Amino acid sequence: MSAAEAASLIKHGSCLGCSGFTMVGNPVEIPRALALLPDRDELRLLTGASVGDALDGSLVRAGKVKYRAPYQSGKDLRRAINAGEIGYNDFHLSVMPSMLNNGSGPKIDYAVIECAAVSENGILPGFSVGAAESFAANADRILLEVNQAIPIDILGMHDIYSCSGEPLEIRDVTDRIGGAWIPCDPDKIAAIVVTDKIDSYPVFKPSDDISKAIADNIVRFLKNEVRDGRQPANLYPIQSGVGNVANAVLSGLESSFSDLRMYTEVMQDSAFELVRKGVITGASTTALSLSEKAQRELCDDLAVYRRRIVLRPQEISNNPEVIRRMRVIAMNTPIEVDIYGNVNSTHVMGTQIMNGIGGSGDFARSAGITIFSTGSLAKDGKISCVVPMVSHVDHTEHDVDVIVTEWGVADLRWKTPRQRAEAIITNCAHPDYRELLWDYYTRACQQRGGQTPHLLSESLSWHERYIRTGTMKP
Amino acid sequence: MSAAEAASLIKHGSCLGCSGFTMVGNPVEIPRALALLPDRDELRLLTGASVGDALDGSLVRAGKVKYRAPYQSGKDLRRAINAGEIGYNDFHLSVMPSMLNNGSGPKIDYAVIECAAVSENGILPGFSVGAAESFAANADRILLEVNQAIPIDILGMHDIYSCSGEPLEIRDVTDRIGGAWIPCDPDKIAAIVVTDKIDSYPVFKPSDDISKAIADNIVRFLKNEVRDGRQPANLYPIQSGVGNVANAVLSGLESSFSDLRMYTEVMQDSAFELVRKGVITGASTTALSLSEKAQRELCDDLAVYRRRIVLRPQEISNNPEVIRRMRVIAMNTPIEVDIYGNVNSTHVMGTQIMNGIGGSGDFARSAGITIFSTGSLAKDGKISCVVPMVSHVDHTEHDVDVIVTEWGVADLRWKTPRQRAEAIITNCAHPDYRELLWDYYTRACQQRGGQTPHLLSESLSWHERYIRTGTMKP
Repeated sequence: MSAAEAASLIKHGSCLGCSGFTMVGNPVEIPRALALLPDRDELRLLTGASVGDALDGSLVRAGKVKYRAPYQSGKDLRRAINAGEIGYNDFHLSVMPSMLNNGSGPKIDYAVIECAAVSENGILPGFSVGAAESFAANADRILLEVNQAIPIDILGMHDIYSCSGEPLEIRDVTDRIGGAWIPCDPDKIAAIVVTDKIDSYPVFKPSDDISKAIADNIVRFLKNEVRDGRQPANLYPIQSGVGNVANAVLSGLESSFSDLRMYTEVMQDSAFELVRKGVITGASTTALSLSEKAQRELCDDLAVYRRRIVLRPQEISNNPEVIRRMRVIAMNTPIEVDIYGNVNSTHVMGTQIMNGIGGSGDFARSAGITIFSTGSLAKDGKISCVVPMVSHVDHTEHDVDVIVTEWGVADLRWKTPRQRAEAIITNCAHPDYRELLWDYYTRACQQRGGQTPHLLSESLSWHERYIRTGTMKP
Repeated sequence: MSAAEAASLIKHGSCLGCSGFTMVGNPVEIPRALALLPDRDELRLLTGASVGDALDGSLVRAGKVKYRAPYQSGKDLRRAINAGEIGYNDFHLSVMPSMLNNGSGPKIDYAVIECAAVSENGILPGFSVGAAESFAANADRILLEVNQAIPIDILGMHDIYSCSGEPLEIRDVTDRIGGAWIPCDPDKIAAIVVTDKIDSYPVFKPSDDISKAIADNIVRFLKNEVRDGRQPANLYPIQSGVGNVANAVLSGLESSFSDLRMYTEVMQDSAFELVRKGVITGASTTALSLSEKAQRELCDDLAVYRRRIVLRPQEISNNPEVIRRMRVIAMNTPIEVDIYGNVNSTHVMGTQIMNGIGGSGDFARSAGITIFSTGSLAKDGKISCVVPMVSHVDHTEHDVDVIVTEWGVADLRWKTPRQRAEAIITNCAHPDYRELLWDYYTRACQQRGGQTPHLLSESLSWHERYIRTGTMKP
């Protein structure tokens, strides 16, 4: 049927579970049509992770969304969340499917899923899986967008499996434990809409000097880990977040390592490029978020990449069981870190959401080693990304092993909070803020002491000052 | 040899890995003898978790300890840590053994292990396993205290296994995957000291009315979960922390549930009592921390309890793989919670360590449902345990599903931060502080808004006020 007919099936106040993860694989035509329909408001919108403008843009601008989970990165949506107009629950990506499968979640009225095909075998996903299999299993009705621009040769790249109380028999990143299709009760399919183009592609900025300096520091750190026997020559499997720094790190690995394995939630161009070159010899992910050019390269050689890349549901790609077992190297980018190693990944100045925690919590807690890397400054130096106390905590001191900036590496493992403070200020903070951090830390030790010295009347004053004056500098 | 001879083998500045978890199973005579020896200072002391006075008391008072990890609850040690005299690294209990086994830790000079026996099969632990198997594997030399007061019939209660990259084939709490003995290279055994009494027993206070009210709220919540199909009739396996509230909760479960299963890190009298009565039909733990009377009951019937209770290394008892798979119900007690669901388990007024995170992080992150329960007040009402912003974060908003006080239950699942604030203030805060919390929250929404409304200049002012005036009340 047409997208408009499919959209008209959706009732006011429904809960939609939509495919899509890191801007790929979300439905496009049905949500765009839905945005035009009157009297379909107060929708609750669940996805895998961030999705394209058709969902988090069109529907939001049309005022149709009341609630959103578990991750987003949309400009209009972010504004509406921070204005208190849309409720947002920001939670671990691996957890949501399990909660739905266990009945600990809202009833899903409609699963809206973009796919490569549908058959008696079920639904064949496209370039992401996300939580689509969980939405399909738990929804009352299923609306499909069969996108003919996705090559049918993608069949065999996915490994669809839902946790059942059995051990996950994944020992290496490309081990397969499930099937190629998302199981689907045909009676639940209420609409099939045929589309024929990829809606949009992510665009990547070239790495800047700061990102390259961070990447150099991480690569040097990892080489030392190999030298000291804490990592094998080809490293334990790597997880890498998104963005400039992550891309620079992946590019940086190329010159020093071979036969890398990847166990991650999203692969962007930089990761795919390493697969293409054979530097990464096997990868597991829940999304392939590629530029138009890279996606074309992927599709031109799907028979090869189906052997090297496995697309899993986020319940599995981000599962603590596999992450712990494989001793994954987790590498993510925060908004700010504090001198004791706590990390803020989500809130600007403690109150305004940026995107969400995404998979960083799934990986940071259970990884073999957890690295957070960021430039030491933001906003032309008006913000120090190393602060006395983070204004929101997403990853606690207990979970953070290593902090890296363009200035250096602070290896926090086995260190006490005071030793961490000394390492982070010395190695990671920008020189413009180093003396201010020393001053805070020294006075906190003298005046309050304790395991984690703080002056509570000052600990968040840098953020207050920025809100008041536009800079953290006094 | 004598304890004094064994202690004399330990060199100045050594790193000791000692058995012991929640005050049971730690060596006693060797550390007491060590405390008397001159020129054996600057020791680094690792254990499973909290240990008896011989280690965290005698050695600390003798000024011999420089560094301690990963958990403690000693009065003298706590004072020394907060004074900055002893460095303390407070980290997840499941992680430490893996890091040692992977070479990502200090070299263990001596493993000092209390055991029931030693033979060509290895070391037979007593009433706790903790990290003993990891210390034995990684130490240069091993010093044993064979305690003849531990009945040899405990043989068969332990399940010793070390993570190896294979799935942990534990589907039910009493599944066994390892052996009864800790593997041990005989050439590494440098001393065997024979002792013959249990050094000390924990003493438990009877539950007070507040604890019973909290327990009632938790039991009612869990019964509703069963009614609504989110838990089976006998619940998913339970983990319970230590202390008054935890003990009251376990007692409270007795009247409403049967055939309970337990997957936890420590069992105290209240849990053992349920095993004895057959209410808990199977349990996995790394420590049996029992009063003298309960320990005698255990020992009188070891053949029965060996079938019902499995003692595992903390790497396994606290492993995220098993905790996630079994959908464990994690129940722990914090120092304070904030209106958005962040939890402080470790630091009083943001700076002074109480004990440590212990296993609460291992369980909270990966559990099927994570419950934190506390009395709403402390210090005769001068402290509200529900505050605008916690002064230290050990469990983030992303990990906390339910908060319970004697006043009621706040079910935070799927709620936005603003919805959480309303539920926590309404259901959990003490009436004496409710208006103050509403006032803070309302002004934060008006003046700053955002996903998580806060007034950073005020968010920690309750703690500051307490430090200044001795009460959080204005």
